[in-house]
Amino acid sequence: MLEPETDGHLLERETGRRELLSRGWLELWRDTVQLPDGNEATREFIRHPGAVAVVPLLDDGRIVLVRQHRYPVGKVLLELPAGKRDAGETTLQTAVRELAEETGFSAREWAYGGEIHNAPAYSSESIWIWFARGLVAGPRRPDVGEFVETALHGAEELESLELAGELPDVKTSIGLHWLAQWKSGRRMLDWRPA
Amino acid sequence: MLEPETDGHLLERETGRRELLSRGWLELWRDTVQLPDGNEATREFIRHPGAVAVVPLLDDGRIVLVRQHRYPVGKVLLELPAGKRDAGETTLQTAVRELAEETGFSAREWAYGGEIHNAPAYSSESIWIWFARGLVAGPRRPDVGEFVETALHGAEELESLELAGELPDVKTSIGLHWLAQWKSGRRMLDWRPA
Repeated sequence: MLEPETDGHLLERETGRRELLSRGWLELWRDTVQLPDGNEATREFIRHPGAVAVVPLLDDGRIVLVRQHRYPVGKVLLELPAGKRDAGETTLQTAVRELAEETGFSAREWAYGGEIHNAPAYSSESIWIWFARGLVAGPRRPDVGEFVETALHGAEELESLELAGELPDVKTSIGLHWLAQWKSGRRMLDWRPA
Repeated sequence: MLEPETDGHLLERETGRRELLSRGWLELWRDTVQLPDGNEATREFIRHPGAVAVVPLLDDGRIVLVRQHRYPVGKVLLELPAGKRDAGETTLQTAVRELAEETGFSAREWAYGGEIHNAPAYSSESIWIWFARGLVAGPRRPDVGEFVETALHGAEELESLELAGELPDVKTSIGLHWLAQWKSGRRMLDWRPA
């Protein structure tokens, strides 16, 4: 997606960097960049460790989601299980951990879906989407201070919620869309044992 | 999506607020909240003015997109035309302005698609998606320091790009998914003259 030879007329090149703020996972950086026309500009953005979302498929076709109060938007959202990547984790390790912590489920098979960027104007965040099947229930282990509840829904019911505007979380909308592409044979998934 | 009577066991209530940083549109806030179990926690998040994305439909069926270097993720992304809401604008006014600035097109008809949240864990951002048709070409007026180029693609070609992982921008993926829902009769759009 970045082709320096043909995209040179679009590229911004780093000429300096300063950390504005660092608190836990939240790092705010301010870079100076050289614009394609040679002028200088500043780019302020969050440096994010990346996150993983899981599309967990029950044998009966339902999908395992979580409901959670998302304070910055003031709403309880229905979302795919997801969480930030811890240092040193592969994205699959994050997926296995977050699915277990938030829902209690473990999975016998996993397939990688792809990578999305949810705020490329001001955050380096990637969200890597994994699919999980062969689910086995177990105890939930939410983080301290994390209040989530599990919700099981069929794919048609979820599309109705999306059409009604009740599924505004982007990773959830995209994960379910990719699931529909896979079910219809348009998207390939390479399932592997856990 | 927020039902205080039934979701009380999930709700976090504000007990204090402090602005950590303010630079242009970027405001970082730190709230203290009371958790559902009565304990206190802090929530740091970006207070964002919100943004609008446009799905611009040419009469020949192609879609008008833009290519742009997104510095925080280090990639040139293919995206729907979009931009932040200026103070006092309705979301439709932002849509009309951003479509003209980034692509030069104006539209004879508009239909509202819906609202998504792209980073509800750490940003208050909403992205409102509008559909536009009856497009008329005109001169582009990019912001100073903004380097974007217009790209026209058919819906099938865009699905192939998405399946190949070449369309990672979330608003673009969702806008095109909603377009497919409308074309197949599953999503209703209420078109109005500009």
